[in-house]
Amino acid sequence: MRQRSLRDHNLALVLRQVTSAPRPPSRADIAAATGLTRATVSTIVDELIAGGLVAELRPVSRSGVGRPGTGIVPAGTGPAGLGMEVNVDYLAVCAVDLAGAVRHRELRHLDQRERTPAQTWRALAGLADRTAAAVGALGLVPAGAVMAVPGLIEGGTIRVAPNLGWQGVALPAAADFPALHGLDLGAGNEATLAALGERHATGLDSFLYVSGEIGVGGGIVLDGELFGGSHGWAGEIGHVTIDPQGPPCHCGARGCLEQYAGEEAIRAAAGLSADGDRPVLAGLADGARAGRAPVLAALDRAGTALGVALSGAVNLLDIATVVLGGHYAELIDWLRPALERELSRRVLTAAWSPVEVRPSALGADAAMIGAARAVIQGILDDPARFLATRTP
Amino acid sequence: MRQRSLRDHNLALVLRQVTSAPRPPSRADIAAATGLTRATVSTIVDELIAGGLVAELRPVSRSGVGRPGTGIVPAGTGPAGLGMEVNVDYLAVCAVDLAGAVRHRELRHLDQRERTPAQTWRALAGLADRTAAAVGALGLVPAGAVMAVPGLIEGGTIRVAPNLGWQGVALPAAADFPALHGLDLGAGNEATLAALGERHATGLDSFLYVSGEIGVGGGIVLDGELFGGSHGWAGEIGHVTIDPQGPPCHCGARGCLEQYAGEEAIRAAAGLSADGDRPVLAGLADGARAGRAPVLAALDRAGTALGVALSGAVNLLDIATVVLGGHYAELIDWLRPALERELSRRVLTAAWSPVEVRPSALGADAAMIGAARAVIQGILDDPARFLATRTP
Repeated sequence: MRQRSLRDHNLALVLRQVTSAPRPPSRADIAAATGLTRATVSTIVDELIAGGLVAELRPVSRSGVGRPGTGIVPAGTGPAGLGMEVNVDYLAVCAVDLAGAVRHRELRHLDQRERTPAQTWRALAGLADRTAAAVGALGLVPAGAVMAVPGLIEGGTIRVAPNLGWQGVALPAAADFPALHGLDLGAGNEATLAALGERHATGLDSFLYVSGEIGVGGGIVLDGELFGGSHGWAGEIGHVTIDPQGPPCHCGARGCLEQYAGEEAIRAAAGLSADGDRPVLAGLADGARAGRAPVLAALDRAGTALGVALSGAVNLLDIATVVLGGHYAELIDWLRPALERELSRRVLTAAWSPVEVRPSALGADAAMIGAARAVIQGILDDPARFLATRTP
Repeated sequence: MRQRSLRDHNLALVLRQVTSAPRPPSRADIAAATGLTRATVSTIVDELIAGGLVAELRPVSRSGVGRPGTGIVPAGTGPAGLGMEVNVDYLAVCAVDLAGAVRHRELRHLDQRERTPAQTWRALAGLADRTAAAVGALGLVPAGAVMAVPGLIEGGTIRVAPNLGWQGVALPAAADFPALHGLDLGAGNEATLAALGERHATGLDSFLYVSGEIGVGGGIVLDGELFGGSHGWAGEIGHVTIDPQGPPCHCGARGCLEQYAGEEAIRAAAGLSADGDRPVLAGLADGARAGRAPVLAALDRAGTALGVALSGAVNLLDIATVVLGGHYAELIDWLRPALERELSRRVLTAAWSPVEVRPSALGADAAMIGAARAVIQGILDDPARFLATRTP
């Protein structure tokens, strides 16, 4: 670990003040909020402006005493974090700026189960190229990338990604992505990164995030921080047992939540065709809106299973908010009754401390936005490191 | 919160050095380990000696250069933490000294289900009196008490203790316990406090603690700290669902782990009589040792259910060590095969990162020792506060 100097610390303090303030603060506002002198704040703001991290708004002329304060804002042409997502049936890349706004988004439907990892990396590199070009045209500079993977990562290896059918697949290097020349490429679990995205989008401090697409994943946020467990593998609620004798799961076990509440399981229970042209989600939502009994029954079954698994998680963790992401966010109206019924029956404390269930704020984009957000987080935590990379 | 002065901080630093050192440190050793000057250390050690928290060993004469160092040890006649336990069929009180040693222990078999809470407090007060008298005879001074309850506490109320049949029962006041005149009385969940006891007894940093007696409880220790959740209710693994359609549970739900792995469930499955004179645990252990098939089958069923619930917990939390407490510690040989089979099948990461299952170090006494330890912890964290109570 690099020793952080006082200057490095103050850079982070001032930058965080600029990105988190409800309205653009002046230098004087920043001095008041941080306890730094106005001279120190001005020096640091100038350095952040020179490094392209913040910008100064045009001073507004106004009547009254004193020089008008000039608002400082995150630079709209500053660094962009790239979030890349490998999912079972699509690839996606987005770019998020220092203020947390999504500035560009690319998505391509591609089934990874029919491809080699190398083919996946190549296709993803194409999306990253287009994203880098698009943000470049907006005046933003890619500052790093994080890749979200629907599996468990250890060191440089994806140990297992059950729904991709991958085991022991090496993560790609930054060099495999021309758009990332010289930048860092990180990787993390998809649902964990999605939880990070939701944390920033909602401001919630503690919640269980559960996302359902082809796989069912989860992430745990405690007191504002991601809870990763001993190796970063925490949150795997998709493989919590619903029925020990239940249907076999890709993971090798039986009766996992995913076999009741994963997309394939819901589709099969609803009697929808597996090879239709329409996305399964649309078929389920349309069928539910039309009141088709098999679709409603399948969603009730999925909601029940989600309720059983989440009740166990709440009993273990004492976290009172559940955020439903992925397809669940769109299906929440039909999942909620059964889910809340199980929570109220099975959570030991539900009678006096009910569990709140709410839809994801970011929907299916949560993982890639969270991945991009992780890059931005790195810059906010240590802007000095980023500034050092900008000077030749 | 009281502002802590530098002196208060240094008192805690030196006392922790004395209680955690592998062998009695000298003043010079303490100075070297803490970075304090020898003069400061000597002043603080003198203050700790005067307050009865540490004692000085007789200097050992030895050859060699320099004055021999004098070892400093936790005072064997210093404060004692009282741990009180309310269980379904017994009450217990113990006293733990500053070094973590159990100095006295009282246990009385009494079924709380046949009694009012007021009767329970009176019986417990009798045990506390005898414990206080016994530690007084040893030269120790009771310094506070914590009560372990097999239920969920909110503010001053036991919201629910399913196996006691209690709901909304007010916690007793210190004034209800003559032995505690003027001292603090705290309260906490039994299994959570047991996990705290195990944490100190084993030195393990992160583990899931599961204890089985009449109820099945749990506690989570992460990076050396108890994980309590949002309200201190975390760890309720006994009410994780094993089979959504399973037998009804005291808590109002169906198919909870307790209905497969609680003492009553194992006894009934083993075909042992409910009203025998012998404790159920002894009957199970004897039957298992004698190879009686119904007993072995009941323990296999309990081990399987424990394995299903713990697999879910490990998938959620990514914690790689499970500590089996209460009766489970004595039955571990017969629970382990099924438990480990389920863990290896159901934990997503088991193939390359196996879960370790080990017996509790403290057995059935873990909760009361952990409760007493919580009092000691309060003194170690803030000895100045304790010293202030000793001066008139």
